[in-house]
Amino acid sequence: SRFEYVKLFESHDRLLPGCWAVIRLDGRCFTSFAKKHSFRKPNDERALNLSNAAAKQVLKTFDNHLVLAYGQSDEYSFVLKRESNLFSRRESKILSTVVSMFTSVYVLMWSKFMDVELQEPPTFDGRIVLYPLTCHLRDYLSWRQADTHVNNLFNTAFWALVDQDGKSLKEAEKLLKGTNSKEKNELLFSQFGINYNNEPQMFRKGSLIIRRPGNEGYEFPKRRRVDQPSNEDHKGTTYLVDMQKDLAPSDDDYHVLHTDIIKDDFWKQHHYLLWPPDDSPPRIRKT
Amino acid sequence: SRFEYVKLFESHDRLLPGCWAVIRLDGRCFTSFAKKHSFRKPNDERALNLSNAAAKQVLKTFDNHLVLAYGQSDEYSFVLKRESNLFSRRESKILSTVVSMFTSVYVLMWSKFMDVELQEPPTFDGRIVLYPLTCHLRDYLSWRQADTHVNNLFNTAFWALVDQDGKSLKEAEKLLKGTNSKEKNELLFSQFGINYNNEPQMFRKGSLIIRRPGNEGYEFPKRRRVDQPSNEDHKGTTYLVDMQKDLAPSDDDYHVLHTDIIKDDFWKQHHYLLWPPDDSPPRIRKT
Amino acid sequence: SRFEYVKLFESHDRLLPGCWAVIRLDGRCFTSFAKKHSFRKPNDERALNLSNAAAKQVLKTFDNHLVLAYGQSDEYSFVLKRESNLFSRRESKILSTVVSMFTSVYVLMWSKFMDVELQEPPTFDGRIVLYPLTCHLRDYLSWRQADTHVNNLFNTAFWALVDQDGKSLKEAEKLLKGTNSKEKNELLFSQFGINYNNEPQMFRKGSLIIRRPGNEGYEFPKRRRVDQPSNEDHKGTTYLVDMQKDLAPSDDDYHVLHTDIIKDDFWKQHHYLLWPPDDSPPRIRKT
Amino acid sequence: SRFEYVKLFESHDRLLPGCWAVIRLDGRCFTSFAKKHSFRKPNDERALNLSNAAAKQVLKTFDNHLVLAYGQSDEYSFVLKRESNLFSRRESKILSTVVSMFTSVYVLMWSKFMDVELQEPPTFDGRIVLYPLTCHLRDYLSWRQADTHVNNLFNTAFWALVDQDGKSLKEAEKLLKGTNSKEKNELLFSQFGINYNNEPQMFRKGSLIIRRPGNEGYEFPKRRRVDQPSNEDHKGTTYLVDMQKDLAPSDDDYHVLHTDIIKDDFWKQHHYLLWPPDDSPPRIRKT
Ligand SMILES: Nc1nc2c(ncn2[C@H]2C[C@H](O)[C@@H](COP(=O)(O)OP(=O)(O)OP(=O)(O)O)O2)c(=O)[nH]1
Ligand SMILES: Nc1nc2c(ncn2[C@H]2C[C@H](O)[C@@H](COP(=O)(O)OP(=O)(O)OP(=O)(O)O)O2)c(=O)[nH]1
Ligand SMILES: Nc1nc2c(ncn2[C@H]2C[C@H](O)[C@@H](COP(=O)(O)OP(=O)(O)OP(=O)(O)O)O2)c(=O)[nH]1
Ligand SMILES: Nc1nc2c(ncn2[C@H]2C[C@H](O)[C@@H](COP(=O)(O)OP(=O)(O)OP(=O)(O)O)O2)c(=O)[nH]1
Ligand SMILES: O=P(O)(O)OP(=O)(O)OP(=O)(O)O
Ligand SMILES: O=P(O)(O)OP(=O)(O)OP(=O)(O)O
Ligand SMILES: O=P(O)(O)OP(=O)(O)OP(=O)(O)O
Ligand SMILES: O=P(O)(O)OP(=O)(O)OP(=O)(O)O
Ligand SMILES: [Mg+2]
Ligand SMILES: [Mg+2]
Ligand SMILES: [Mg+2]
Ligand SMILES: [Mg+2]
Ligand SMILES: [Mg+2]
Ligand SMILES: [Mg+2]
Ligand SMILES: [Mg+2]
Ligand SMILES: [Mg+2]
Ligand SMILES: [Mg+2]
Ligand SMILES: [Mg+2]
Ligand SMILES: [Mg+2]
Ligand SMILES: [Mg+2]
Repeated sequence: SRFEYVKLFESHDRLLPGCWAVIRLDGRCFTSFAKKHSFRKPNDERALNLSNAAAKQVLKTFDNHLVLAYGQSDEYSFVLKRESNLFSRRESKILSTVVSMFTSVYVLMWSKFMDVELQEPPTFDGRIVLYPLTCHLRDYLSWRQADTHVNNLFNTAFWALVDQDGKSLKEAEKLLKGTNSKEKNELLFSQFGINYNNEPQMFRKGSLIIRRPGNEGYEFPKRRRVDQPSNEDHKGTTYLVDMQKDLAPSDDDYHVLHTDIIKDDFWKQHHYLLWPPDDSPPRIRKT
Repeated sequence: SRFEYVKLFESHDRLLPGCWAVIRLDGRCFTSFAKKHSFRKPNDERALNLSNAAAKQVLKTFDNHLVLAYGQSDEYSFVLKRESNLFSRRESKILSTVVSMFTSVYVLMWSKFMDVELQEPPTFDGRIVLYPLTCHLRDYLSWRQADTHVNNLFNTAFWALVDQDGKSLKEAEKLLKGTNSKEKNELLFSQFGINYNNEPQMFRKGSLIIRRPGNEGYEFPKRRRVDQPSNEDHKGTTYLVDMQKDLAPSDDDYHVLHTDIIKDDFWKQHHYLLWPPDDSPPRIRKT
Repeated sequence: SRFEYVKLFESHDRLLPGCWAVIRLDGRCFTSFAKKHSFRKPNDERALNLSNAAAKQVLKTFDNHLVLAYGQSDEYSFVLKRESNLFSRRESKILSTVVSMFTSVYVLMWSKFMDVELQEPPTFDGRIVLYPLTCHLRDYLSWRQADTHVNNLFNTAFWALVDQDGKSLKEAEKLLKGTNSKEKNELLFSQFGINYNNEPQMFRKGSLIIRRPGNEGYEFPKRRRVDQPSNEDHKGTTYLVDMQKDLAPSDDDYHVLHTDIIKDDFWKQHHYLLWPPDDSPPRIRKT
Repeated sequence: SRFEYVKLFESHDRLLPGCWAVIRLDGRCFTSFAKKHSFRKPNDERALNLSNAAAKQVLKTFDNHLVLAYGQSDEYSFVLKRESNLFSRRESKILSTVVSMFTSVYVLMWSKFMDVELQEPPTFDGRIVLYPLTCHLRDYLSWRQADTHVNNLFNTAFWALVDQDGKSLKEAEKLLKGTNSKEKNELLFSQFGINYNNEPQMFRKGSLIIRRPGNEGYEFPKRRRVDQPSNEDHKGTTYLVDMQKDLAPSDDDYHVLHTDIIKDDFWKQHHYLLWPPDDSPPRIRKT
């Protein structure tokens, strides 16, 4: 029709090729939402598990495009592979679809996890951030996990003071103001007999979801060996790449880990996740 | 923490000031979703009403920022006012929040409108398109309504041939191929006694949702008179601007219309909707 | 070659269709450049004329795409027509070409206007700003001309105090601090017998360059009449559109005006410049 | 003034931090420009040296921000360091300033290199392309140098056929069509006694300009040793970083090389150029 020209105003919003892209969602006004739905304080395991279920659905759907997801509190981050050409890397399309799917599952599965009824539509904002190098991405994930730690330690001490010690919110706030990590740990231990390190891992470390083979005696290298031929330094090494491609993913294919992702250990054990390395980057294809 | 620098990679994605912005959502793979959930053909009134309910919630939430919404099939368009400073006009924030809220209500209210259970999470993609002039926006809305008409006329004829005439999908497709509007109208009338113009307005015109005062004898100009002082041509005329601001919006404040929005009539009757005119634009404020 | 994939990293940077686009250039460190080349204070007519010559060359080259140029001090603004499809509206291509051409002529013609030798390469930065509505564009031009006025009045008073009254730079600065326009006018008149309104128009109003027919008794409407048919309000009126297209532009086709462009008068007399009006916008074509 | 709001329409166009950025300039219509100014065929050494002089000026001016420049034919590429915060990484500002300065010197120094007078203002377009990884950048430079080789081999054979063999342009074109590199080399040798490998290096390899210390017995490591402390793998190694910072650059500080930059050799010998490596990237600072 003669109106079709209006489509020309749409913009090309392709994400720069070759970069990691993080899609981060965050609950809108969850301070109020958590109160209204009586979330347990400082962490509601059920709510976190609901988030994890929503994240799993996103991962399953875009299985070959997303490498992992990390969640804590009311937020979730999804990492898009550098070589991914999902929706031709169109930013709005990727962002909106991921936010919509996460929200959809969050509402759909609400009653499976929570025992109060939904009072209002939970809503998440979202953004996409590009990271050129793998260490930028590592630092991004470290940033989120460090945030988890700091907030959780504070909240644990805060609610101990309020719930177990009968302090008012203001008093608790004041008591904790200016204390460092060590002091909060000591306060928890001396006053409440709480060894912070024994607090649930999910609360202290957040949730990392990755695609892994099942646990029925499955051995990695047997499924599919990939020799990276084009790079001198990696010759001889066997990598597991896109092994996932061969299998339709089921919920069991995803593992929710509550582990340290700031130190190198985890990434050395799961070197294939962020593979190939920066000096041997994935092929860029026409979009 | 030393990781905080990663926030510097976030981009400023402010929408150009002074433009209309359309946020258009569209159901992901609704061809399959409609089938799986036995949507009535060619239009499922209940599903359309569900969409309308989701759209109303978006309008209510961003009441002073959105001027109208137009929906049809599996899509919905929201029009952001030119002068709106919602989220400082940050594109990703606006897009993600609107898509998320729409999706959230769609799932939350599903069972109120539909009688089958949800089999999978309905998902919507979204984009934001800028239109500099009011006539571009008018043409955008005309484009969507013309699309509604063309698709609905085709679908009505198609499913009449299949359901009432026992034609196969292929036969129906073939019979309609190359026919113009007039021929489809005639086919409907002569073969099936269907006067297309008597088909439900919602199917033929889509749904326009606007904010209007209630129907208890309410008269516009009484609530709040605004004289636009800075523009010669409009002096003396009384406009109703942001009248809404004074009232917390309830569901009744929104009217769902199924009316022609291509011709000028509607816009003349509701001149305040797209007011002020291009030659007397709204003030741009610091964002 | 196998390296060609690197071209995929180039971005689509199309300017939003339907908007006016202003390309503004500004001399890099011209405070120092002017000193080094003994520019006359506060205005060097020769330097301004050199800028005007460079601007004319840009206008001539992109004749059908640019509607006017406005210059003052070390800056120049070029207005790209809303309907222009110059370089498919690619922002970097337009910006770089205009800046490069302006610079090129500035150096090439330097010795024709100035009598000192060039000591260093004059350099201009540039940016493109989009304006959705004609009144935004009008306000942009008013902004630049108001700036011309304010700066020139200050500079005229400042250098009178220094050159004619023997004040030091600091003393002159101090004396003028906090004075308004009226006070500066009075100071000029009472102390130096200068009637500011008699100062050269070029200094007070800047330079506007537009395409106009020659002065050999030429009458506008005779060349080419264009009746704008699609808009009720303009029926009957005769507009001159793209008349320029028919003629290869020569230097004589451009007129440098030093006139008020803040008030409506000029624009009424030259209504064809910003035509068509916002409510009857130019056709957007595929880019 | 009340017009100042128009500045709000300017966009934030910051280049993604942490990426290499290439600013590539290319002569506008240099096919015609070269003809008009009797450039020697297929390469005019004087014109290439003029380009090199313009490039040197750009490098000198933005000494700590640009790491190298590579030129050939009518084009030049400048590589902005990943950690550079030049103009807060504002894309338009960087692009326009570089293009303007290059053009300015090209015109200013024209007569020093060329013996015909300038007939028209030489103009260059420009663009900025981001490359996340060092190997993307390496591939970019390889792409340009491979292009140099392919074009130059073709042009050398072409003009030998035309100038020495009396072939028409069409005949030469036809004779070379479909021939590969080896065949062109053989044709040059057998028919014209030209050993292509003895052709001037500047024509075959293009020009790479880098900042290097002088050749008066200067020894790198003596000036300033930098131990990169934060990265295990590089401990013990001595790198030379920003040594340049300490010295105001003069023309002699730049070396124009005509060398292979596709193979690893050059980059191993000049490892400091693209240092630090991807897995130990430069610090990103607030912009
Ligand atoms: N009680 C409780 N609260 C939670 C839990 N998870 C998240 N929250 C609350 C605590 C925080 O107030 C809030 C998350 O902080 P945000 O910075 O995202 O703020 P909020 O969502 O209120 O505002 P926003 O719209 O994101 O700017 O959600 C939970 O498991 N239990
Ligand atoms: N039966 C039935 N189908 C509907 C109704 N509303 C929408 N649909 C279906 C018909 C179309 O196949 C589909 C909408 O077309 P689209 O162009 O949006 O395609 P679809 O959503 O399949 O793919 P997409 O992911 O948007 O590219 O949704 C309805 O009320 N009844
Ligand atoms: N004496 C003299 N100075 C002039 C003339 N035209 C411009 N200038 C000088 C006065 C101002 O200091 C300067 C223009 O001001 P700007 O705000 O553009 O500053 P400048 O170019 O120094 O720095 P920038 O690189 O643009 O940030 O150029 C002239 O005709 N005569
Ligand atoms: N004779 C001669 N020609 C040269 C020399 N350097 C460059 N050229 C010419 C040869 C090519 O036709 C032209 C460069 O090719 P381009 O692809 O940049 O095309 P051109 O600049 O004509 O068009 P453009 O505006 O860049 O699209 O410049 C030279 O040293 N000698
Ligand atoms: O934690 P963030 O990044 O969401 O930071 P914020 O303070 O919520 O800011 P915004 O969501 O507005 O970017
Ligand atoms: O109707 P649209 O604009 O959604 O067009 P499409 O063909 O679905 O394309 P896309 O959603 O990929 O822009
Ligand atoms: O007058 P402008 O817009 O050039 O403003 P500025 O203060 O020079 O700032 P910049 O050139 O850095 O945008
Ligand atoms: O060689 P390039 O990249 O300049 O390619 P082009 O064919 O000249 O295209 P354009 O300059 O229009 O991007
Ligand atoms: Mg936030
Ligand atoms: Mg939140
Ligand atoms: Mg949060
Ligand atoms: Mg679509
Ligand atoms: Mg759809
Ligand atoms: Mg649709
Ligand atoms: Mg400036
Ligand atoms: Mg300046
Ligand atoms: Mg200036
Ligand atoms: Mg080109
Ligand atoms: Mg060229
Ligand atoms: Mg070229």
